[in-house]
Amino acid sequence: MENIRVELGDRSYDILIGNSILEIIGEKLKTFNFSPKLALISNELVFSLYGDIVSESIKKAGFDLLTVIIPDGEEYKNIETLQYIYNELLKYKLDRKSALVALGGGVVGDITGFAASTYMRGISYIQIPTTLLAQVDSSVGGKTGIDHKLGKNMIGAFWQPKLVLIDTKTLNTLEKRQFLAGLAEVIKYGVIWDSELFQFIEVNKEKILGLDYNPLNYIIKRSCQIKAEIVSKDERETGLRAILNYGHTIGHAIETVTKYTRYLHGEAISIGMCLEAELAQLLNITEPSEVKKIKELIQFCGLPYCLPEDIDRTEIISSMYLDKKAIAGKLKFVLPEKIGKVRIERNIPGEILKKLL
Amino acid sequence: MENIRVELGDRSYDILIGNSILEIIGEKLKTFNFSPKLALISNELVFSLYGDIVSESIKKAGFDLLTVIIPDGEEYKNIETLQYIYNELLKYKLDRKSALVALGGGVVGDITGFAASTYMRGISYIQIPTTLLAQVDSSVGGKTGIDHKLGKNMIGAFWQPKLVLIDTKTLNTLEKRQFLAGLAEVIKYGVIWDSELFQFIEVNKEKILGLDYNPLNYIIKRSCQIKAEIVSKDERETGLRAILNYGHTIGHAIETVTKYTRYLHGEAISIGMCLEAELAQLLNITEPSEVKKIKELIQFCGLPYCLPEDIDRTEIISSMYLDKKAIAGKLKFVLPEKIGKVRIERNIPGEILKKLL
Repeated sequence: MENIRVELGDRSYDILIGNSILEIIGEKLKTFNFSPKLALISNELVFSLYGDIVSESIKKAGFDLLTVIIPDGEEYKNIETLQYIYNELLKYKLDRKSALVALGGGVVGDITGFAASTYMRGISYIQIPTTLLAQVDSSVGGKTGIDHKLGKNMIGAFWQPKLVLIDTKTLNTLEKRQFLAGLAEVIKYGVIWDSELFQFIEVNKEKILGLDYNPLNYIIKRSCQIKAEIVSKDERETGLRAILNYGHTIGHAIETVTKYTRYLHGEAISIGMCLEAELAQLLNITEPSEVKKIKELIQFCGLPYCLPEDIDRTEIISSMYLDKKAIAGKLKFVLPEKIGKVRIERNIPGEILKKLL
Repeated sequence: MENIRVELGDRSYDILIGNSILEIIGEKLKTFNFSPKLALISNELVFSLYGDIVSESIKKAGFDLLTVIIPDGEEYKNIETLQYIYNELLKYKLDRKSALVALGGGVVGDITGFAASTYMRGISYIQIPTTLLAQVDSSVGGKTGIDHKLGKNMIGAFWQPKLVLIDTKTLNTLEKRQFLAGLAEVIKYGVIWDSELFQFIEVNKEKILGLDYNPLNYIIKRSCQIKAEIVSKDERETGLRAILNYGHTIGHAIETVTKYTRYLHGEAISIGMCLEAELAQLLNITEPSEVKKIKELIQFCGLPYCLPEDIDRTEIISSMYLDKKAIAGKLKFVLPEKIGKVRIERNIPGEILKKLL
């Protein structure tokens, strides 16, 4: 089992990565000073696969466990589902020293983290991410939240988990499309931070797509290490952390305009990464050969790499201006200089954007 | 103008107290690094009295100001009003560097602070409290939140303002009943921390009730100093800060059981303070003479001091067990040893509580 420490002073925590480690959760929870009442938040599908093993482990450790099942899908990451969670927690009388355990993908993790950050002004939570995307990205770093009809993750909080437990075995039951969407974020880490990771994926791409345990374990571990390092340096995204948003300025806009129904998050940011690499090329920030490598790897992994004709370009642009990353009406783009290194640009002329799209 | 500093590391801020100082708000806002778009949150009554002077000052300082008027009353401190605020902020495209200005009493301040803590994962806010209760209590210390049908302030966050601006002139337009409810919290500071403040109120009670500027200014300043000192030592209520809840264990239960319609917060905690002082006497923690002084001062100020017969005692008790302060099924009481000094008690036998009520 690998142990990666996210260093954040008194909010530091461990990410445990291993194969078939779900059953240790109960013992791990006992090492904290929680009250006896905990809640497990999950969705129907994930709970049917892993609910028993996790619940039994927690109950065996002596906890009294409430289970809250929420509907699956980004469209339910909203204030209504949040209210449902609050109601259940209050009915079951969870107290200030209770903790929530999120078992599932990004939706479950984000909304559970946000519920924890606001229930009785903040209680503890644990992440057990079961999708590749959640394992390498959303479960680490404390960004929690819900969507609003005017934009993704518009309401939320920075609230760090007490522990992240990643069981790579859960990827065996993950839909292929979901797996690939997670791989998009791994490719992102290669582009923004680590050219070796990028090359590793290029070399081992068939094995990774075949769920070969060793390369898979390596890319998850490396992604978590990179994210932990960036988040430790800039928890609240006042500077460096923004580089994690490579592909996201355009990607979020695509998700908003297509109402979260057409693309998975990782698919939308795949298109975003390709377009933002092209933008870097248009601005002479990067070499065409680097852009080509990025697009080819994304394409090889079966991820979308261009914006379909039927998506309204004007809507994409106006949606970008409402993004949280837009400050005082200026868009922020993370642009690759070369694979492994990015820079942040704020002054992109509107004409260049129109040309790009 | 008085300036009290709340020391909280990088979350430190000033409380400015003075007479007729509303018009300086614009200049003060300019000293921060906010984006040009700000929002003023208020209710109809307060906005009709002070909205113009505050808005003009802010606009004159060069800001683009959205005004959001929310309905008045604790029954609107809920998730629906919060959603209305989110919608307005998003429609007006407030960004991560925008700030919210709360102009009003505790409801406006609490919900504005909570909206600020969760909008785009946290933006800045400023408190301009216009009731005595908000000036001496809720605007200082960063407790924000909304109510839930199963309990008061169940959903919320610790989120510190960037500035608190207290204009004592606003008390001239405050309803007498509201003023007295605020005075209850001032009496509380005397009991928990400062016997001199308690005596000062005893000696100057007629002047204070007559809104005489000098004693009023003193008790507001002293209350803010005490709260600032306690909050600086224990921001997240892991220990000391809990003493601010004297009168609140029973007080909150009274508010919940009477559905926030019968008593103002300060009235409910007045009953709570009297009953909790009696509880201290029952437990031989305090002298009967001290309990008598507390009850007499509360009574003199025209505040309620006993629990009416028609309120169901069983409901009061079961409501206390759902309070945020109840951990693992144990109630927490702040009990006076003498005026100026309290202790926290966790193991109160159920029979004593029944006897008390």
